[in-house]
Amino acid sequence: MRSIAIDIGNTGGKYGIFEEDALIAQGNFKEQEGLPQEVASQSFDNAIVASVSRGAEQIKAGLSVSGSIIELSAQTALPVSVGYKTPETLGADRIAGAVAAHYFFPGRNCLVIDAGTAITYDFIDAAGRYQGGGIAPGIQMKFKALHNFTGRLPLVQGIHKNFPLIGQTTQESLESGVLGGTVAEVEGIISAYRQKSDKLVVILCGGDAGFFESTIKHPIFVIPELVLIGLQRILRHNV
Amino acid sequence: MRSIAIDIGNTGGKYGIFEEDALIAQGNFKEQEGLPQEVASQSFDNAIVASVSRGAEQIKAGLSVSGSIIELSAQTALPVSVGYKTPETLGADRIAGAVAAHYFFPGRNCLVIDAGTAITYDFIDAAGRYQGGGIAPGIQMKFKALHNFTGRLPLVQGIHKNFPLIGQTTQESLESGVLGGTVAEVEGIISAYRQKSDKLVVILCGGDAGFFESTIKHPIFVIPELVLIGLQRILRHNV
Repeated sequence: MRSIAIDIGNTGGKYGIFEEDALIAQGNFKEQEGLPQEVASQSFDNAIVASVSRGAEQIKAGLSVSGSIIELSAQTALPVSVGYKTPETLGADRIAGAVAAHYFFPGRNCLVIDAGTAITYDFIDAAGRYQGGGIAPGIQMKFKALHNFTGRLPLVQGIHKNFPLIGQTTQESLESGVLGGTVAEVEGIISAYRQKSDKLVVILCGGDAGFFESTIKHPIFVIPELVLIGLQRILRHNV
Repeated sequence: MRSIAIDIGNTGGKYGIFEEDALIAQGNFKEQEGLPQEVASQSFDNAIVASVSRGAEQIKAGLSVSGSIIELSAQTALPVSVGYKTPETLGADRIAGAVAAHYFFPGRNCLVIDAGTAITYDFIDAAGRYQGGGIAPGIQMKFKALHNFTGRLPLVQGIHKNFPLIGQTTQESLESGVLGGTVAEVEGIISAYRQKSDKLVVILCGGDAGFFESTIKHPIFVIPELVLIGLQRILRHNV
């Protein structure tokens, strides 16, 4: 079975091409430009599309698929159970990350931290029950908000791990507050989950995963393709 | 001496009226509406105006002052020394909070946390040397950014201390990520300063100080009028 999993996020899309369960190719694309030609020209047995942003109709229309195209929704059958009170508003990427975490670490309590435009926290317990989590602003979103929503602060954009605790310029102060603040935030949330949950596995993914991998003191796994792999697990569960 | 201190922030202004060093009245106002009539109609010996937002010209023009009106800038003489590399871009409210902290706790290392539109961290050491700090988004700014900068998240606005760790609805997830995340962030930053600095005094002020007072585990002082008192100390230093 050759399949494609597509994840349309707030600031762009990702695709992963699978041969059976093996991820053999992946890439990014801009939502308005659609899938790259070399992907759109391929034929697939099945496909799955998840979107936290606008509809996925245009992407689906451009795919050549002989079997099923699944658009992940609250009605999609999942290989995990969901203890979330409002599944219809649960982000597709959040549940996909949890599905993949349980696939990689069955029988373990897992906290998935997807660090992108937003930073989402998702907890799935050892029995494969997704319980929920949190949504916080990501690093670039914080920099943008401080610039857009105040009178005088400049826009800072760089992410690096050598931020100071005591910033001595406006740039350094913003780096201390946003980079240092977010590291403190993620470490604190991980500690709170650890206190609640035995033998917790923490898995990081998302565009800023590398930054947190180099700054967070807790032991963590980094699996950049977590959401794509989770989507493919959901696809396998449905075809 | 009867004086008035005016602090114009990102989302509104505050004034404090002092009889010698005693704060005898205070209140809030909207920048576009100016000072309330009962304040604008009073006569003062001296005044100090600080603004992190647009200019303070209109507010100054509406004051009846027999002595000096000081507009706080990088050139204003201060009762503390400043080890900041870009004093011309240092927010007036940040230096005023540090001045007041050193006034209340001379000979102690002080961390001022001003929790408003932004959350600013400012460190002034036991010798009265302001060293700098950090600038992070405040709670309402985070909620607003998550709504404005993503495709599907609603605007949450309430601040309360009963936020969950594991949110089970989108609203709860946003509360977990923003309220719980910011508490974790502030606690982590305080811990980092404690590790660096002996006998640290932590002082909270700003509109959200009450929320953090009830959620932060570290011992802290809450002084809501810190910035106004700091401005008045700077005024006294100059007249």
